[in-house]
Amino acid sequence: MIVVMSPKSSEEQLNHVVELVEEMGLTSHVIHGTDRNVVAAVGDKRQVDKGAIENCPGVEKIVPILAPYKVASKEVKQEPTEIRLEPSGAVIGGKALGIIAGPCSIEDRNQTIDIAHAVKAAGAVALRGGAFKPRTSPYSFQGLAEKGLEYMAEAREETGLSVVTEVLTVPHVKMVSMYADVVQIGARNMQNYMLLKAVGEQPKPVLLKRGMSATMEEFLLAAEYIIDAGNPNVILCERGIRTFEDYCRNTLALTIVPAIKKVSHLPILVDPTHGTGHAYLVEPMSLAAIASGADGLVIEVHPDPEHAHSDPAQQIKPEQFKELMEKVKRVATAVDRTI
Amino acid sequence: MIVVMSPKSSEEQLNHVVELVEEMGLTSHVIHGTDRNVVAAVGDKRQVDKGAIENCPGVEKIVPILAPYKVASKEVKQEPTEIRLEPSGAVIGGKALGIIAGPCSIEDRNQTIDIAHAVKAAGAVALRGGAFKPRTSPYSFQGLAEKGLEYMAEAREETGLSVVTEVLTVPHVKMVSMYADVVQIGARNMQNYMLLKAVGEQPKPVLLKRGMSATMEEFLLAAEYIIDAGNPNVILCERGIRTFEDYCRNTLALTIVPAIKKVSHLPILVDPTHGTGHAYLVEPMSLAAIASGADGLVIEVHPDPEHAHSDPAQQIKPEQFKELMEKVKRVATAVDRTI
Amino acid sequence: MIVVMSPKSSEEQLNHVVELVEEMGLTSHVIHGTDRNVVAAVGDKRQVDKGAIENCPGVEKIVPILAPYKVASKEVKQEPTEIRLEPSGAVIGGKALGIIAGPCSIEDRNQTIDIAHAVKAAGAVALRGGAFKPRTSPYSFQGLAEKGLEYMAEAREETGLSVVTEVLTVPHVKMVSMYADVVQIGARNMQNYMLLKAVGEQPKPVLLKRGMSATMEEFLLAAEYIIDAGNPNVILCERGIRTFEDYCRNTLALTIVPAIKKVSHLPILVDPTHGTGHAYLVEPMSLAAIASGADGLVIEVHPDPEHAHSDPAQQIKPEQFKELMEKVKRVATAVDRTI
Amino acid sequence: MIVVMSPKSSEEQLNHVVELVEEMGLTSHVIHGTDRNVVAAVGDKRQVDKGAIENCPGVEKIVPILAPYKVASKEVKQEPTEIRLEPSGAVIGGKALGIIAGPCSIEDRNQTIDIAHAVKAAGAVALRGGAFKPRTSPYSFQGLAEKGLEYMAEAREETGLSVVTEVLTVPHVKMVSMYADVVQIGARNMQNYMLLKAVGEQPKPVLLKRGMSATMEEFLLAAEYIIDAGNPNVILCERGIRTFEDYCRNTLALTIVPAIKKVSHLPILVDPTHGTGHAYLVEPMSLAAIASGADGLVIEVHPDPEHAHSDPAQQIKPEQFKELMEKVKRVATAVDRTI
Repeated sequence: MIVVMSPKSSEEQLNHVVELVEEMGLTSHVIHGTDRNVVAAVGDKRQVDKGAIENCPGVEKIVPILAPYKVASKEVKQEPTEIRLEPSGAVIGGKALGIIAGPCSIEDRNQTIDIAHAVKAAGAVALRGGAFKPRTSPYSFQGLAEKGLEYMAEAREETGLSVVTEVLTVPHVKMVSMYADVVQIGARNMQNYMLLKAVGEQPKPVLLKRGMSATMEEFLLAAEYIIDAGNPNVILCERGIRTFEDYCRNTLALTIVPAIKKVSHLPILVDPTHGTGHAYLVEPMSLAAIASGADGLVIEVHPDPEHAHSDPAQQIKPEQFKELMEKVKRVATAVDRTI
Repeated sequence: MIVVMSPKSSEEQLNHVVELVEEMGLTSHVIHGTDRNVVAAVGDKRQVDKGAIENCPGVEKIVPILAPYKVASKEVKQEPTEIRLEPSGAVIGGKALGIIAGPCSIEDRNQTIDIAHAVKAAGAVALRGGAFKPRTSPYSFQGLAEKGLEYMAEAREETGLSVVTEVLTVPHVKMVSMYADVVQIGARNMQNYMLLKAVGEQPKPVLLKRGMSATMEEFLLAAEYIIDAGNPNVILCERGIRTFEDYCRNTLALTIVPAIKKVSHLPILVDPTHGTGHAYLVEPMSLAAIASGADGLVIEVHPDPEHAHSDPAQQIKPEQFKELMEKVKRVATAVDRTI
Repeated sequence: MIVVMSPKSSEEQLNHVVELVEEMGLTSHVIHGTDRNVVAAVGDKRQVDKGAIENCPGVEKIVPILAPYKVASKEVKQEPTEIRLEPSGAVIGGKALGIIAGPCSIEDRNQTIDIAHAVKAAGAVALRGGAFKPRTSPYSFQGLAEKGLEYMAEAREETGLSVVTEVLTVPHVKMVSMYADVVQIGARNMQNYMLLKAVGEQPKPVLLKRGMSATMEEFLLAAEYIIDAGNPNVILCERGIRTFEDYCRNTLALTIVPAIKKVSHLPILVDPTHGTGHAYLVEPMSLAAIASGADGLVIEVHPDPEHAHSDPAQQIKPEQFKELMEKVKRVATAVDRTI
Repeated sequence: MIVVMSPKSSEEQLNHVVELVEEMGLTSHVIHGTDRNVVAAVGDKRQVDKGAIENCPGVEKIVPILAPYKVASKEVKQEPTEIRLEPSGAVIGGKALGIIAGPCSIEDRNQTIDIAHAVKAAGAVALRGGAFKPRTSPYSFQGLAEKGLEYMAEAREETGLSVVTEVLTVPHVKMVSMYADVVQIGARNMQNYMLLKAVGEQPKPVLLKRGMSATMEEFLLAAEYIIDAGNPNVILCERGIRTFEDYCRNTLALTIVPAIKKVSHLPILVDPTHGTGHAYLVEPMSLAAIASGADGLVIEVHPDPEHAHSDPAQQIKPEQFKELMEKVKRVATAVDRTI
């Protein structure tokens, strides 16, 4: 941490900062510059709240040096984390891409099983589907709850696909964890810390979606909560951020893929469905995601999007998914990945 | 809802849209324009998912006409909602401003009681304080939990102030609701729908903070969740949004105050502490908030910000709060409000 | 400037950075931390491009210490800059607020003179109006050009108001400067550096509007261009930034007012017309701007907004402006300012 | 255009809107809804300012139906525009990708010629380089001006590459147009309408970079200015937008590539250099751009980035560019494009 003193700050104010730094258990180095002085505080105290010093008289600003996340970073673990999904045996984070596909909401038993067969045939390794739906409006379809989980489990039986589904609240964690092979934390819950801890305490891998306005640092700190609670199997997922752009529902921030690869060992997928919000954009952005280095995709597929109970505008049909997968395979090969 | 057909769409595609509209229980009016046709779908079906039609062949876009919120809107209730806080008797949403102040985190018993006396003397009607802290980093102070609630209750006994505190997760709602006079939903939980429902089912007024990237519509839909679950006493609170600005922690979007007043009957407060993130900005933005028409303020006050366990950079001292309140009173008078 | 080395960087890489720092004419201090080393580069070399070092092997990131602007900063000049407008004699940046009002576009002679009388009667010190209009669409009204400037000059003759008008391109600077008392640089041209230099070389004060996505630093650097070219009379103006908010045309970022006051000696006005984009929001945000510490306002007033040639949705009528000014006066008094 | 009346609006207010619509030369259709009435205004009047009606009493909002751009849209021209560059003969917008590469600033003669040879050998069709540099700080290197143009012309002689360079201001258009094969409009000038007109009146193709906070509609309207002034050869270029993200200099919004392809016939390139701001991100985002459907790339290449006069952090070396091109070719093949 670097403390930048304001140009007119006094010697006394400088000394006060030095004291506060040492009170925190850090070592201080004072550097006298031409325009202003700075105090470099040395020591690994990620939990020290730098704001404490920012409020001192004579301080202009605080510049953190260490990233605040640790166990999610490459400093702690150099080699990429590979996460094996049961029962499919697929590995997320290795050379092979992991494609997860399925309807936005689980709506009925037959639909679920049919879609599972279709996405498996096209190359998906896991079935996604919402049993509990976080809907912006209280008047929208809220999901089938446990019934939906049962249908997914049945689809797993039939196809061997792994099952990925979202948990919305702490009291549901146990139940969802029982049915699912991967527990998903949605974008709106990325900073629901109680929920992060709860999924950190259950054994299934966690698919953590990036919050709509989360910085990379906040994203990795959310992963850190889960790992810190005991679960090292966190799969990150970029799904679009909120900006001023209006031709799409969210701005898919693909650059986070190589940026995450530089600082963290965790695998990262991309969700081009929520990341764009329009069916016609899913295919080109799937290809772009793979080319950028993503470890896989999360795609919504529905047999009859016009009659879907949720997110109809952005789901694609099984036949479109099949075509998309053909193209994904070609791009994957071009960047030395497999499916 | 208006369905805009693309210029090259066929008669058959138009007919398909009309069918789908009527299948939804709406009446359709086709308007033949010079460049393209549009279908106006009439009827109050807020729960209809417009995306269903967006996915139809030949459709260019869908334009919603009705706002998706209803009970939070002025269409349903013209007169402003006034919410009485116990035991202080203060009313939020009337002519008098409601000022809520206190430390970021409840740290110990004496601090809590001292601050309560100080903010009451300066004119606050309620004491705020965090017992459960939503922290970005798992290594930061997480709050005193129930002990913190007890200290706040004691401070209420001593001062007569109402107590405002945040609830983070469904399993805590009952306990927090027992101690608090106003239950707060933090910005990170604004779209935690299970939590919104849970606080909608308990009897205390709810202070709903705007999410960091929430549109006005999403903000009012979150309020709608709470009202829909049975609790009409929702106090909105603007607390800054995430933008590219970097001289502040968040961009305080004060224009939402008069914008909300135009479409909704709910009261709205402003939190200049989180809304700016720096102590020196709290006073000017408090005055600006009142001038813009806010029904009150939520301000963090700490006896020794340098040693605060959380958010030290943005808390002000009791003597600064006292001065601020003197100025707030003058601006309040200038806009025909009282304290 | 602080150079943060990556944890696995070598001694050789550290030495290379030290060499590069010294090659730039700066002094280097190496600090060996627990996790990584940092190099503090000391010396006032604002023009040194820190990116040069960021690209070196073993470097994790560069943290600038000095703000890149200088003559616009309080480090160079502590007392606030007061700028006198001719012929009105109004001073921008002192205790008295400066209110600038008038139509979006100058449309005809009589309209211009009538509006000038009306805004003067209500307390404005200057007339604003567009002769050259920067329009998003090539099919929109583009302004009366020199004819418009003549009408404004005539209105000045009649009323004694100062005249504020925008210049769009370098070849027009001379002409606009001849007619205007204050030359305006619009938001879309805030980083049109050739234009900034050109208005820096003419003698009239410059009203510099903040770009739609400009940081505070970029805003002050744009002012610095003008001052550096020879013109110290720069009046800043916040006019809203682009965010995801959709209930308004721009998000009025009022917090920049006290933030600028902290680091710069330049006066700052607020434009609640473009800053919100809707007539009904102009009054509350004018009051908020004054309460936040702004040195004045820029407001669009039109006798018949429904038939205005540009920006009809956001202009207010003369009688609304008069009422607004009554309220502005009350808030001004409450914050110890005058009109 | 759809005019949505507010629920409590009167019959008289509705009639006033109808009159105003017809006064504009449009036909009106009134639709009586369950909650509110709407007026559909039919007719191709893109230049009608919808704000005029928004300001009428009883009006809640205006919803535009037609996109405001016309000649840039597919409605006017279905087949993709292909733009031939001289003297290289490369075509932008066809099956073959167009790769443009070169240093940020032209710094000296030999560097320019060497880089030109290097990028040509790797497969580029044009040399980019800045002779006039738009720098955020007045203290930064501002370019070699005409001398820089001469060096680029010489490099063209030697290599046969086309030359792409930026023009900053109207008085330079003639000179730049004389030397360059493609005239570039930078992001900061995307809404400098006088400059857009000026490059629309010269004969060379124009490379139009997207403004940092431009919507897709504004981007296409800027192209429309150029086309409308007489020059149909506009090449669009996505180069990152400003958001809250801080691990990159800009957020590369790749989704605009397929979105533009849907509504416009103009070719679109991607600039991963400015679009990310860090050398290590250029390669993965180049591949992603091609996979998303871009017609080519604009990449900064410098022989010695550590000593570059501008943007050192984001330029790559010739050998890195060569490697990148090998990978680009593989991805291009995978999406049925050639180089």
